[in-house]
Amino acid sequence: MRIVRTIAGLRAELAPIRGRQGPIGLVPTMGAFHDGHLSLIRRAREQCGVVVVSLFVNPTQFNDSGDLDVYPRDELRDAALADEIGADYLFATSVSVSGVSDGLEGEHRGREHFDGVATVVTKLLNMVGPEVAYFGQKDAQQALVIRRLVRDLDMPVRIEVCPTVRADDGLALSSRNARLSAAKRERATSLHRALRAIQDAVLAGERDPVAATEAALAELTSAGVEPEYLALVSTDTMTPVSRIEGDVLAVVAARVGPARLIDNALIQVPALAGNTTMRRP
Amino acid sequence: MRIVRTIAGLRAELAPIRGRQGPIGLVPTMGAFHDGHLSLIRRAREQCGVVVVSLFVNPTQFNDSGDLDVYPRDELRDAALADEIGADYLFATSVSVSGVSDGLEGEHRGREHFDGVATVVTKLLNMVGPEVAYFGQKDAQQALVIRRLVRDLDMPVRIEVCPTVRADDGLALSSRNARLSAAKRERATSLHRALRAIQDAVLAGERDPVAATEAALAELTSAGVEPEYLALVSTDTMTPVSRIEGDVLAVVAARVGPARLIDNALIQVPALAGNTTMRRP
Repeated sequence: MRIVRTIAGLRAELAPIRGRQGPIGLVPTMGAFHDGHLSLIRRAREQCGVVVVSLFVNPTQFNDSGDLDVYPRDELRDAALADEIGADYLFATSVSVSGVSDGLEGEHRGREHFDGVATVVTKLLNMVGPEVAYFGQKDAQQALVIRRLVRDLDMPVRIEVCPTVRADDGLALSSRNARLSAAKRERATSLHRALRAIQDAVLAGERDPVAATEAALAELTSAGVEPEYLALVSTDTMTPVSRIEGDVLAVVAARVGPARLIDNALIQVPALAGNTTMRRP
Repeated sequence: MRIVRTIAGLRAELAPIRGRQGPIGLVPTMGAFHDGHLSLIRRAREQCGVVVVSLFVNPTQFNDSGDLDVYPRDELRDAALADEIGADYLFATSVSVSGVSDGLEGEHRGREHFDGVATVVTKLLNMVGPEVAYFGQKDAQQALVIRRLVRDLDMPVRIEVCPTVRADDGLALSSRNARLSAAKRERATSLHRALRAIQDAVLAGERDPVAATEAALAELTSAGVEPEYLALVSTDTMTPVSRIEGDVLAVVAARVGPARLIDNALIQVPALAGNTTMRRP
């Protein structure tokens, strides 16, 4: 695996092999790899002739500079892991977004967060020129924003969204999990239990979103976790649904101690058959 | 020359030849070719292995639907002209920009105009994937917006801005000129005379922008033309300069009868030598 640090360097590497060794796959990351990242790199390796893993810390994806400062970074370790899976290039870069890094404030992440993500992903896609780019389902809203961006701007790339990877205790993998004490981590597992409670309610026939989240809210409350949001939203627009039908997404976000955690689960309610299928979080 | 009407069709045509027959050049146009367009296609033909001319009417570039309705369109004639110069592909498409087409109003074009141009050019660049894209200096602000866009988003394309092409009477070529009566056309030539008057003032040593535009304003007034703007602006920011030094752009816009016309001239004042060079409009 080669480590490249400049756009010009990367383009020089890719130009002679573009279109000659199968599709180029891009896995955009902020480093601090866990099994979720590695699952994306493996998927890219299976599907693509050339695998580029980009590695950088995007300041706009952090709510405050404190969060940024403690984000775990270990480029050497990340490089070794990517190399082991068979990535061809590690593109270690910092992407600056003028005018977007400012103004991040408030309890939840603002619209600026996704403007920043969209700009950075656009830049990375333009830098690398991949045929496929891989994202995790855990960041469901990010994946939707990027799908929309790529469609609206006719970018010549396919976006593949891969399943959320979880620890044995059900917690969705996140670099921020490392900041949880044992006690806080136990509390954090209430997020996936809450999503499961919603799925159980829907499986039992509940179609009202407020009623369907009651048991989930109790699950969080009993763990001492107050959600930033816990909702059933449209998979197309990420806005709350008034009735559970078709594909809906159960989403939850909560701050547990020092870490802001998110999770989600797809709920599929066939319109006529009455069967309900879902991937359990 | 092949005429292609879909993104998929164009990509299928270009995929096997990309990187194999020299650079791909894109000339984005709205059709109704005049010698200005043809000069861009010729430049692309000289420099590139594959020349794509895109042809579409972008609703956001028109101030009102009346202007759009009377815009001359003749695809067959345009196709014949592009073919004659040796273009390889005519990409005849309509590009929709949701949420950007609305809200165009007021005397001058709003910021929406350039947002629309930026979005459409981004989409065209993503559709075609050219190594070089060609634009005319007549639309100086548009060229600047596109250069900035390409730089900010790291798009893998070189933007080449080609000189304004003029009729024998000095009028900058524009599809809208066809809508001028003989009398109105005579009045319209005051735009380039105004730019020349500014150049003469600067050549004579004038460095104050207000004083340098006095004779130019008189030129327009005597022709019965009231400018929307007549100014000396920075080539980097398109904002008025307080003193004429280095590279500045003389810009003018005016409505003459049914047509809104624009023109510009680059003025270069060497910082130390005292020599002034300029391309006469």
